[in-house]
Amino acid sequence: MILELEKNISSENKAKFLSKLFEKDVHFREISFGDRGLIHVQENGDLISLGEFSGVNEVRSSQQFKLASREFKPEDTVVDVGGVKIGGKKLVSIAGPCAVESLERTLEIAKRVQDSGAEILRGGAFKPRTSPYSFQGLQHKGIEILAEVKARTGLKIITEVIDTETIDEVAAVADIFQIGSRNMQNFSLLKKIGKTKKPVLLKRGLAATLDELLLSAEYLLSEGNPNVILCERGIRTFANHTRNTLDLSIIPTVKEVSHLPIIVDPSHGTGKRNQIYDMSLASIASGADGIIVEVHNQPSEALSDGFQAIEPSDFQKLMRDISLIANVRQRHF
Amino acid sequence: MILELEKNISSENKAKFLSKLFEKDVHFREISFGDRGLIHVQENGDLISLGEFSGVNEVRSSQQFKLASREFKPEDTVVDVGGVKIGGKKLVSIAGPCAVESLERTLEIAKRVQDSGAEILRGGAFKPRTSPYSFQGLQHKGIEILAEVKARTGLKIITEVIDTETIDEVAAVADIFQIGSRNMQNFSLLKKIGKTKKPVLLKRGLAATLDELLLSAEYLLSEGNPNVILCERGIRTFANHTRNTLDLSIIPTVKEVSHLPIIVDPSHGTGKRNQIYDMSLASIASGADGIIVEVHNQPSEALSDGFQAIEPSDFQKLMRDISLIANVRQRHF
Amino acid sequence: MILELEKNISSENKAKFLSKLFEKDVHFREISFGDRGLIHVQENGDLISLGEFSGVNEVRSSQQFKLASREFKPEDTVVDVGGVKIGGKKLVSIAGPCAVESLERTLEIAKRVQDSGAEILRGGAFKPRTSPYSFQGLQHKGIEILAEVKARTGLKIITEVIDTETIDEVAAVADIFQIGSRNMQNFSLLKKIGKTKKPVLLKRGLAATLDELLLSAEYLLSEGNPNVILCERGIRTFANHTRNTLDLSIIPTVKEVSHLPIIVDPSHGTGKRNQIYDMSLASIASGADGIIVEVHNQPSEALSDGFQAIEPSDFQKLMRDISLIANVRQRHF
Amino acid sequence: MILELEKNISSENKAKFLSKLFEKDVHFREISFGDRGLIHVQENGDLISLGEFSGVNEVRSSQQFKLASREFKPEDTVVDVGGVKIGGKKLVSIAGPCAVESLERTLEIAKRVQDSGAEILRGGAFKPRTSPYSFQGLQHKGIEILAEVKARTGLKIITEVIDTETIDEVAAVADIFQIGSRNMQNFSLLKKIGKTKKPVLLKRGLAATLDELLLSAEYLLSEGNPNVILCERGIRTFANHTRNTLDLSIIPTVKEVSHLPIIVDPSHGTGKRNQIYDMSLASIASGADGIIVEVHNQPSEALSDGFQAIEPSDFQKLMRDISLIANVRQRHF
Repeated sequence: MILELEKNISSENKAKFLSKLFEKDVHFREISFGDRGLIHVQENGDLISLGEFSGVNEVRSSQQFKLASREFKPEDTVVDVGGVKIGGKKLVSIAGPCAVESLERTLEIAKRVQDSGAEILRGGAFKPRTSPYSFQGLQHKGIEILAEVKARTGLKIITEVIDTETIDEVAAVADIFQIGSRNMQNFSLLKKIGKTKKPVLLKRGLAATLDELLLSAEYLLSEGNPNVILCERGIRTFANHTRNTLDLSIIPTVKEVSHLPIIVDPSHGTGKRNQIYDMSLASIASGADGIIVEVHNQPSEALSDGFQAIEPSDFQKLMRDISLIANVRQRHF
Repeated sequence: MILELEKNISSENKAKFLSKLFEKDVHFREISFGDRGLIHVQENGDLISLGEFSGVNEVRSSQQFKLASREFKPEDTVVDVGGVKIGGKKLVSIAGPCAVESLERTLEIAKRVQDSGAEILRGGAFKPRTSPYSFQGLQHKGIEILAEVKARTGLKIITEVIDTETIDEVAAVADIFQIGSRNMQNFSLLKKIGKTKKPVLLKRGLAATLDELLLSAEYLLSEGNPNVILCERGIRTFANHTRNTLDLSIIPTVKEVSHLPIIVDPSHGTGKRNQIYDMSLASIASGADGIIVEVHNQPSEALSDGFQAIEPSDFQKLMRDISLIANVRQRHF
Repeated sequence: MILELEKNISSENKAKFLSKLFEKDVHFREISFGDRGLIHVQENGDLISLGEFSGVNEVRSSQQFKLASREFKPEDTVVDVGGVKIGGKKLVSIAGPCAVESLERTLEIAKRVQDSGAEILRGGAFKPRTSPYSFQGLQHKGIEILAEVKARTGLKIITEVIDTETIDEVAAVADIFQIGSRNMQNFSLLKKIGKTKKPVLLKRGLAATLDELLLSAEYLLSEGNPNVILCERGIRTFANHTRNTLDLSIIPTVKEVSHLPIIVDPSHGTGKRNQIYDMSLASIASGADGIIVEVHNQPSEALSDGFQAIEPSDFQKLMRDISLIANVRQRHF
Repeated sequence: MILELEKNISSENKAKFLSKLFEKDVHFREISFGDRGLIHVQENGDLISLGEFSGVNEVRSSQQFKLASREFKPEDTVVDVGGVKIGGKKLVSIAGPCAVESLERTLEIAKRVQDSGAEILRGGAFKPRTSPYSFQGLQHKGIEILAEVKARTGLKIITEVIDTETIDEVAAVADIFQIGSRNMQNFSLLKKIGKTKKPVLLKRGLAATLDELLLSAEYLLSEGNPNVILCERGIRTFANHTRNTLDLSIIPTVKEVSHLPIIVDPSHGTGKRNQIYDMSLASIASGADGIIVEVHNQPSEALSDGFQAIEPSDFQKLMRDISLIANVRQRHF
């Protein structure tokens, strides 16, 4: 359960309550959410009665997810990524290669997408791959390349973290942790990332319902990390004209039930280069807070997923046109 | 197989070929496609050798669907519905109640949506319903009401045809036949509708792949009806935050492989009133040729599907904003 | 709504009630269910108050489907197909080619499957095909072949009826109408078949839920045809190791909520010849009332779906082993 | 890539080849598979030419998965769990509570299922839960309870390992590691478990294709752990009469393309207590190598998933009847 301490709770009452928790030997953690003070209590069957404590209230919501719900926090969350804001009037554009392949190539792509308006560079160093025989990313060397590109361009960096062992290494360069769709319910990873305050992009799992996505976000929030950005990247259905089925209807639904920002990944969401333009426009039109797109300067040579990357010149045109769509929604890039 | 007669085929050669078909006792049907002459030959195993006939070529395509493919017809098809064009620069807006309920209500809704820019009125007289105990539509009386509303407003009419028995009755008032998703593979119905020249809106089945949708269109085309409009209206997936999952990625895919126009039904596609605005904008942004939306002046009293209908005032705002989206795609309403 | 007349209702009370229905100008139909008298009343909003009529009760169920529910009829329905019983202790084996191709071949296959214990011959004369260019069945000639094979072997015949126009023609030879998965929600067809008393095999649609399947059965039952047999034949999912995903868990679920018999089609359910043996055994083990299997004497030459047909010798082995499985469930072939 | 060393390769040739790998600075790992010597080489683009080395061959298969394929190993793999064999003529029965709740309860359930023929006890100590507010398992204390029950009953233990941090702790008591469906593509976890030799039950992900399941198995195999058992536990589809859709057709498919054993979890596969009997029978009839079933002595009080657990007396009846089914398949419990 999640408890909220009233702003004016006396230190006496707070101390009294905390000692009760110690006495009952339950696990609990104090977290803050903006200027609100919360306590996440891990109960194992033994329910806590709050009646006797003033200034302590249970966070309730008609949803299973509490902290992620709009009932808990009516106003939109705007995540601040070193000055780049995600979730406000300004939309975010994240672009870059699927995998980091070399310094030269990554730098070249970075400059091109930056010129077109991207503020954050994507690029995988640790790559989760379906087959053990596929390229697994440059790993440590990839992180070094990202650090170099970050230093030279000033772009913010998002890169995937695939296990708890490499969190610190990834954190050294990443401005945003990316949690991939296969790890959406890797709860040990979520708990550890939740203990940092670093922004995190949580991608929807291939078979995840809305509630499951938001409950995974709740793992992050309830550990004390309020900087959660959701990402729709396609679900698995019978439809075979795309690699996945991009479920844009989740955008207005998330906006209704949650305060968290949500962006769209049309590259994985369709898996087809020639649908990215159209589906990016559709994403922004549906109310998304931004896009994350794979851009490669030689897609046919890409070490992973080249078939779904667009070229920098296409990205330039895309940025121009989604800016016009943004205007219709009274937002801008 | 589909054969194409060269424009300058001599009448002697054509006669020679047709007599060969008679001789082989195969079923065949001459159809025209614009100014192109085609013959649909129904073979049962016994293949026709074309080598000896000049001026007759088989229509080939890398797709299973032939006449629906862009290889057969590179330019976009624009369907003319009594002056309202579907598939060109101008987009189409179709609106109205799920079911025709009374003359007064239908007329009221019709006038309101017409004021906001709709050119075609939707409204079901024959309703296919999951339960035999649900309201099955006003049927004959519903057709009469539509005729009256058409006469008074000048709006074009689209209404569903659910079986071969009622084709003539529906045809008397409908400017566009609607074939519902449950009937997308009702091949007897498709064949009969294909023998008319009246425009037809073919809705994608709940579990239909792209190829299946276009092969159902091919049933219509190969019977001689070139006036086919496709409609995406959501597919059935595990996702439970919407009634169906609107698969907008089919829009750019259809545009790539086919010349047929395609519109979107965000009402059935989401089944949620408060998602219609966002998904309509997304539909137009993705490149759709128009939308078909359920509008009702008292949704809570609707005899069917009221939960997914919007009110006329919401429709007015919707039309205003999708017009701006259309402009970004260099199209207009 | 469905009303039940008490067995001892006086003719006076019954007449009084029927005249009330005439007076209110509602559509209604008297049907019988075994020795129970029912009235299906089609209401359009205007509710009938039963309070004043004695001997007339509304059929209620916790399910949307009423007549198909076990609450309405606790004991299992056993459909009698000219002496072959479906739904009782004895299980049914239906086998034969996907499509009727010639008298010789059909007769040969019929004799072989009969020798192995099949009591009913399957074979399509009217074939619903995804593409208009695929073999559409021998149609009228196919019906004649089935009639001849029936006369010579004494096997009962099941064959598909694809539209209302050909019901009479199909009825002349068929002991069981087959309604294919694409037509599960072809309500006009269901209503017409429901007006006959001939047994009907209703196949589950590719994307049909349990409730939708049983509501389609309800269309048949509420028109007065109690001889409904359900059929699980695979659903459409993301899984790609089979053509469809055979959902055997629907068998115990149907047994729980409905009194109707249900059989399994492992041929369409998997679309893979080498899975039919295993999935047939699993079907009987799960509690199904029988199987319907595609058998062809030269699968590689079959005009449709040969890849999912087994040979007569395989069918013989299958019958032997599913008989052993049946015994475990205290049933037999 | 995976390389196989010929049995009679000279130590000189082997040394020559290994020094080549060192020289090229590629990551590689020597593993054994029975008495076969393999080398897993992690290439990053730079392909190794084998032409010059005798006694070294690439393992090839028509499938993406190599070591898991029947082409690599034609005979069935039988995993030995401390004397309990999985994959041979004898089938395995695994039973127990969803979560370990107390020593008394776990012991009571363990004895009851052991009496009915179960050889392995299931029970979760570390529980992956959709919501952070749900019971997360007794964790360390749960492991202690399992150790005690193991000591007292002699049952083998299977329990879930949810992250790399707790592998050693789980390994201390587990005879089989369980990798849950949410972690099927947690590649870091797979790699670490693959480095042990302990048997591992790999559950199919909710949206995993056959290839993905076997490629995850390949992660385990290619790290050197040959003791992999697969588990079908239901996939996510639109069907709503069960929690998941049990896809039994994967059983014969796995048997065809792979040598690995596969068992079925009808508890998670259906999520409905009253379907477990029927689906267990169907599982064994389809050719599965065993079942894993949730049994609880007071399902209504279970701390997790009680609705899908059966009582010990039901388990007893189940064991009796699936033994009869096993006999039909010429196997036994």
